Amino acid sequence: MTAGDTSNGPSSRITIHPVTGMGEVRAGDDLPHLIATAIRQSGDTIMPGDALIVTQKIVSKSEGRWASLADVAPTAEAISLAEQVRKEPRLVEMVLRESTAVVRAAPHVLITRHRCGFVMANAGIDQSNLGGSDPDRILLLPLDPDQSARALRTGITALTGVAPAVVITDSFGRPWRHGVVPVAIGAAGLPSLIDRRGEPDRDGRTLAVTQVALADLVAAAAGLVTGEGAEGIPAALIRGLSLPQGDNPAVALVRPLEEDLFR
Amino acid sequence: MTAGDTSNGPSSRITIHPVTGMGEVRAGDDLPHLIATAIRQSGDTIMPGDALIVTQKIVSKSEGRWASLADVAPTAEAISLAEQVRKEPRLVEMVLRESTAVVRAAPHVLITRHRCGFVMANAGIDQSNLGGSDPDRILLLPLDPDQSARALRTGITALTGVAPAVVITDSFGRPWRHGVVPVAIGAAGLPSLIDRRGEPDRDGRTLAVTQVALADLVAAAAGLVTGEGAEGIPAALIRGLSLPQGDNPAVALVRPLEEDLFR
Repeated sequence: MTAGDTSNGPSSRITIHPVTGMGEVRAGDDLPHLIATAIRQSGDTIMPGDALIVTQKIVSKSEGRWASLADVAPTAEAISLAEQVRKEPRLVEMVLRESTAVVRAAPHVLITRHRCGFVMANAGIDQSNLGGSDPDRILLLPLDPDQSARALRTGITALTGVAPAVVITDSFGRPWRHGVVPVAIGAAGLPSLIDRRGEPDRDGRTLAVTQVALADLVAAAAGLVTGEGAEGIPAALIRGLSLPQGDNPAVALVRPLEEDLFR
Repeated sequence: MTAGDTSNGPSSRITIHPVTGMGEVRAGDDLPHLIATAIRQSGDTIMPGDALIVTQKIVSKSEGRWASLADVAPTAEAISLAEQVRKEPRLVEMVLRESTAVVRAAPHVLITRHRCGFVMANAGIDQSNLGGSDPDRILLLPLDPDQSARALRTGITALTGVAPAVVITDSFGRPWRHGVVPVAIGAAGLPSLIDRRGEPDRDGRTLAVTQVALADLVAAAAGLVTGEGAEGIPAALIRGLSLPQGDNPAVALVRPLEEDLFR
């Protein structure tokens, strides 16, 4: 068979489509329009049941989440922490402003609890692939990524008549594994966390694995086409998911610090 | 367009194919033969560049990694730890035998460093979906999952003439996020960890994200069809990956405890 053959039944397969050709996204750009246009110009159409995965960077850019380190006066706390982690004091100041707690500080490592709840490096502040040469320019996470996902879903629905699930992704490191993986920081129109507590397994025992981070699986799958770094593919469509009932946002994936079972 | 349309260019898309119809896997079964047969009987064929993702459970079953808690006499250490974590002492004994260190012990939580390096709950010991009614029956991880992946790759190549990348997956919890995600515990024929340190970003700055856990992305993507629990779909093919050069095993994803930046 060929790659295009669907004799196995297209319903049983999942396809991941890169969304390309959007160009550089600027503050104030109508992101639903840019995405819908890019999909249409590639000869594709958003279909019922599709999930649209969008990387954080273009969401932040469209929302104008820029800042310049040139405008930042670090506090004494930031200066002291910057010395400890060997990072730029003005960047550390911005990380602290975006965070509610420092989780880990060590040379070249600054892990914080972002104000949205996510535990991540440098509060998700971007300094690469920003489309400019100003070394002081930084890009913050969207103000409320779940709200950004809902707005994207509403905008795409208004333009196309179809309401895809939407997941906004960013790349996270992990404590005990090398390398980053994309995870969901915003979501709408799907259950980000599937709760199967109480369901029986195939032998009638209670299932050991009871909660599945569906939005993170979707984020990682899209990462296979959006890649990291130089590729510049900012979004993907995933088709053929059998999405379970339910709708909970990416913040449902946040485990409160006091519940942190691994420390 | 329809779901089967490939006008966008099949090479730019990734497809995830469930591998079904293998039946219950037993100790000593020829897993490459079972998988190749299941793929053929579904009308599909392994193609050059494909990745074959296999869930840990059927690998462990084919390798006969069964044990019975009825045969286990817990040590004093296991009995004391079992009291602390409120788990069955014989299970805790087996977790300790499979582990090199206890990372976190709390009521209902036992996180260890598995002897293969992975930090995970209960040393990856399975007690659900084991295809039997004996409550003492448990299933351990493969002895050497990277070696299992290499053997699967060799076996599939001998049968089909095509050498797919192979990833063996298991579901892991995460410290600061709810829900499990599949990750790679064994891999062959692909770079599990892509190292981009030193590459420039699109603006000529040094890339901030320098290592990508490719095998974990592949594992999570396959998780969208293999699911968790009752579905019983034990493997998947992923087609259309542009796999980078290189070949490093899943153990390359293990961050040594002493490098643990998050604690």
